[in-house]
Amino acid sequence: MRKIYNFSAGPAVLPEEVLEQAREEMLDWHGSGMSVMEMSHRGKEFMSIADETESALRELAGIPDHYKVLFLQGGASSQFAMVPMNLLGKKGKADYVNTGQWSAKAISEAKNYGSVQIAASSESDGFNSVPPLAQWHISPDAAYVHYASNETIGGVEFQWTPDLSAVAGDNKNIPLVADMSSNFLSRPFDVSKFGLIYAGAQKNVGPAGLVVVIVREDLLDIPPLAGTPAMFRYKTHADNASMYNTPPTYAIYIMGLVMEWLKKQGGLTAIEQRNIAKAKLIYDLIDVSSFYHCPVNQADRSRMNVPFTLSDPGLDGAFLKQAQAHGLIQLKGHRSVGGMRASIYNAMPLEGVQTLVTFMREFEKNHA
Amino acid sequence: MRKIYNFSAGPAVLPEEVLEQAREEMLDWHGSGMSVMEMSHRGKEFMSIADETESALRELAGIPDHYKVLFLQGGASSQFAMVPMNLLGKKGKADYVNTGQWSAKAISEAKNYGSVQIAASSESDGFNSVPPLAQWHISPDAAYVHYASNETIGGVEFQWTPDLSAVAGDNKNIPLVADMSSNFLSRPFDVSKFGLIYAGAQKNVGPAGLVVVIVREDLLDIPPLAGTPAMFRYKTHADNASMYNTPPTYAIYIMGLVMEWLKKQGGLTAIEQRNIAKAKLIYDLIDVSSFYHCPVNQADRSRMNVPFTLSDPGLDGAFLKQAQAHGLIQLKGHRSVGGMRASIYNAMPLEGVQTLVTFMREFEKNHA
Repeated sequence: MRKIYNFSAGPAVLPEEVLEQAREEMLDWHGSGMSVMEMSHRGKEFMSIADETESALRELAGIPDHYKVLFLQGGASSQFAMVPMNLLGKKGKADYVNTGQWSAKAISEAKNYGSVQIAASSESDGFNSVPPLAQWHISPDAAYVHYASNETIGGVEFQWTPDLSAVAGDNKNIPLVADMSSNFLSRPFDVSKFGLIYAGAQKNVGPAGLVVVIVREDLLDIPPLAGTPAMFRYKTHADNASMYNTPPTYAIYIMGLVMEWLKKQGGLTAIEQRNIAKAKLIYDLIDVSSFYHCPVNQADRSRMNVPFTLSDPGLDGAFLKQAQAHGLIQLKGHRSVGGMRASIYNAMPLEGVQTLVTFMREFEKNHA
Repeated sequence: MRKIYNFSAGPAVLPEEVLEQAREEMLDWHGSGMSVMEMSHRGKEFMSIADETESALRELAGIPDHYKVLFLQGGASSQFAMVPMNLLGKKGKADYVNTGQWSAKAISEAKNYGSVQIAASSESDGFNSVPPLAQWHISPDAAYVHYASNETIGGVEFQWTPDLSAVAGDNKNIPLVADMSSNFLSRPFDVSKFGLIYAGAQKNVGPAGLVVVIVREDLLDIPPLAGTPAMFRYKTHADNASMYNTPPTYAIYIMGLVMEWLKKQGGLTAIEQRNIAKAKLIYDLIDVSSFYHCPVNQADRSRMNVPFTLSDPGLDGAFLKQAQAHGLIQLKGHRSVGGMRASIYNAMPLEGVQTLVTFMREFEKNHA
């Protein structure tokens, strides 16, 4: 067992078993004599890795056959442009829900490609909640609705999947698009409710440099905007099974190992229970304490990213230093929020959270 | 020592020492308790890795201070669009040299963004040579000249850097842009002769999922075309030291290890001598043989990718099978060329090429 617990918001902790297997196979994958990094992406060895990674993802997430899975590069930041470039079509208009900094980045980029309407926002609440579905205003002529299912910085998470049919009026088949980067595969979700899902790998599924896209096939028929690079067209990648160019092979391999690990954990239903238990440990402590504080509305708190402040910010430095001495690292909050943030993705073991909570209690006792 | 020699065109063989170090550090980089894959890209550990990787590259290639080094995603295929989107500016016109399939891909993508003139082409020669500089026609109003310094599929390589001042007429400061993906860092090159250089990492510098861009700073002042995604603007990345979004951290780390390995080999001058010696072994055998054939003009033969055919294509299957039995793998030629291709990048040891040549002689003796 390793001696530290890494609460980084991403790139983030990976399962120890996954890293051990990657170490074991580094110079010779399955007797091939090659590292996975050295394999032609079109050779039978890597093709089998890519196929098995996709199959495991499909099984875990229950992805229907009429959805394509794409392994792309450029992170969610590239998706902020790819989504409007590919889905706006002739409508030229899209609805976005604004729940914080990642929503805002998606909105800002989409404005370069069409008309953006804010369907709902939690700005008036300081982005400490998610707007209830009843408050969403869907444009009758919008091409899609975009939201971020978890705000990594604000620590705000949707505990429900928006059922647009209830609010979309005549635009009843409008596709729902989700940035799931920071809570992807942390709980079961119904892919059939979405038109498109994207997720940067570096939180819950693997290393940085890979972004997973799940897209309903009929959306691939929308003509991309003029000037959309070949590499930014979903159809380019869908038509070539993500092998139009050389994909990020090693990241896909690690993701495959993480998928196998996730299956061994019991899949998404089981990992959700663990994630609920882990988050509860920290939030319960915060809620009984007057020393720690979390600004997020209780019903909308993220199970993945727990931001909290100390009543005296002058103690932040001491907290971080002593936490590190206890093997608890990367707890510093995002520069725009301050305080602390504990990111507790799938791969963070319960013991890590228990160690953190024990330390937090002790620190409070010594400094309150 | 490993038992096989991997002649893949890319992703390709990596130095064994690099893979051993990566294995050693997989679960705990320098006592940090973290794998490099798990590190925040903004943490001091990864920042030091990125800084050292860039410094080593700058030292090896002698990159002047007024050039930025960018670590991007999306491979050369993304550069095919990024180059015109960022460099065409108001001129709207660029010159391209066509020496084969990778040139053609760059040309095809550039046509989506402006007017493309073919400055020179070896098409009439079946793309088996590079066009002499005297035959290049530079447009007086082109924004840049693009060429591929090595054609991975055709096995054609420029043994010289185009001195555009000799042929550019009044357009004398026209920037030279090079796709160096498949011969980057295989020989010394004078960065100051170029406006922009790009290279996918998966041939000579690391794993797939990373593309290195070296760009002269003044070119960052050209306004990108309208509709250029934030992630496709060089300035986005230059202004943020390649940390606008999460970079492909593990690929950068492996590249850093390869740079250290390259320095230990004696740098680019020394590696060039090794590459010359390796290529000579195979070409010398081909030239004295009537059994093996290489269609490429002698002066323009690639040191990195050696395509060759057997006089009887009916023996291709037997050649590949017996080669594999000798530990010589990934020798099958590109589907568009047929025959064989031996890619012998920096990390291919001399012993690998010697083993191949010995096998080729033996096979010829048994089948000629």
